[in-house]
Amino acid sequence: MAGSAEPTNVQALIFDVFGTVVDWRTSLIDDLTAYAARRGIEGDWTALIDAWRQAYVPSMDAVRRNPQADFIILDDLHRRSLERLVDEFGIRGLTEDDLSYMVTGWHRLKPWPDVVPALTRLKTKYILSPLSNGNVGLLTRMAKNAGLPWDLILGGDVFGHYKPDPQTYLGAARLLNLPPEQVMMVAAHNNDLAAAQALGLKTAFIPRPTEYGPLQTLDFDATGDWTIVADDLAGVADRLGC
Amino acid sequence: MAGSAEPTNVQALIFDVFGTVVDWRTSLIDDLTAYAARRGIEGDWTALIDAWRQAYVPSMDAVRRNPQADFIILDDLHRRSLERLVDEFGIRGLTEDDLSYMVTGWHRLKPWPDVVPALTRLKTKYILSPLSNGNVGLLTRMAKNAGLPWDLILGGDVFGHYKPDPQTYLGAARLLNLPPEQVMMVAAHNNDLAAAQALGLKTAFIPRPTEYGPLQTLDFDATGDWTIVADDLAGVADRLGC
Repeated sequence: MAGSAEPTNVQALIFDVFGTVVDWRTSLIDDLTAYAARRGIEGDWTALIDAWRQAYVPSMDAVRRNPQADFIILDDLHRRSLERLVDEFGIRGLTEDDLSYMVTGWHRLKPWPDVVPALTRLKTKYILSPLSNGNVGLLTRMAKNAGLPWDLILGGDVFGHYKPDPQTYLGAARLLNLPPEQVMMVAAHNNDLAAAQALGLKTAFIPRPTEYGPLQTLDFDATGDWTIVADDLAGVADRLGC
Repeated sequence: MAGSAEPTNVQALIFDVFGTVVDWRTSLIDDLTAYAARRGIEGDWTALIDAWRQAYVPSMDAVRRNPQADFIILDDLHRRSLERLVDEFGIRGLTEDDLSYMVTGWHRLKPWPDVVPALTRLKTKYILSPLSNGNVGLLTRMAKNAGLPWDLILGGDVFGHYKPDPQTYLGAARLLNLPPEQVMMVAAHNNDLAAAQALGLKTAFIPRPTEYGPLQTLDFDATGDWTIVADDLAGVADRLGC
């Protein structure tokens, strides 16, 4: 059995969302390709979506480097990146409604097939929350669209910080009124778990080897000494006795 | 029909909790009376609970008067008030476990009978959240115990402020990514609605005439020009077309 230790006394599970819970790439390719066909807009949507996601980390880093400024929520970072990219990709004729539809594509992402049944099992014993760089409004609308049975919603704008800033992991434990060791971070990204583990949280890794499609280079396997390593969220529920 | 205007374009409903959603007085009297009987502890639990609730507003005011200090969550204010009151009421022999059980009584409060069916209806069309002076951990555990189908949880500790501070109402609208006029505050307390209305939120009043038992002096009726006035949450759902 993978994983170094049985978790003890965990009360709450907090989840990375983009990639771990939802398949952002396939969801957006399907959504925007169909939308563009209806609207008669031409473009390489797969390439645009891959570039959009590549803009994600640099856009959060820019917020992090300027802590005196107001925090910028992910919806707004998505919008700024998109405006630049449609220009770079030579996509023309987009209206304000088109841009708004595309940005809210991140509110309509579909979960991986194991997610809803496993969360439903885990919810019987644990407090469940996203801990995502998405903003609360984005995550709330995604949960309603996708039927994600969270108990509460924690996003970057609750803390005014993006992961992996410590304020996010420790802020989640604080709002849950739990010591970090009673909170388990669940993610398909080793770097997210490393940041959580360094602050005392428990960790669970599941691989999502198709998250980035042909561009995936990382996170095919667990690279750290995580509390649980499983094939998917059903395996996490198994290991936690749900 | 009561209420001055039909709500338009409301996207989210935020709810006062203590009194509006849950019957704190009957719940705590039943819970602590049964617990004390099992433990063989003597005391006037009804009087203690009424005094405990009377300590609520002054305890938050003390936090509000000292904004430079760290915010104190409601669980901790409840604990401090309880320690003083058990001494004043001459209740002896309480262990740490007893005090902890009593404080977490606020996590085990029961909803009024109209609440869960009406929230279930409202959830099909609206984002639903508490906006309570309770802390997120308290409200999350209450929701799991009582089956309250919130989409997200907003408590005083998210904002570092207690209602009626404007940071709470406006902070809720900000985290929901909505202008205040697309958010409706639902409460059994006219003063809560007045604070929300002054900031541009929509408002819904329902009476809870037995909230304070024989001590109730206020809020038998709507005293402001609220968007909706209904007999209970089922009536709010009716008015909102759910």
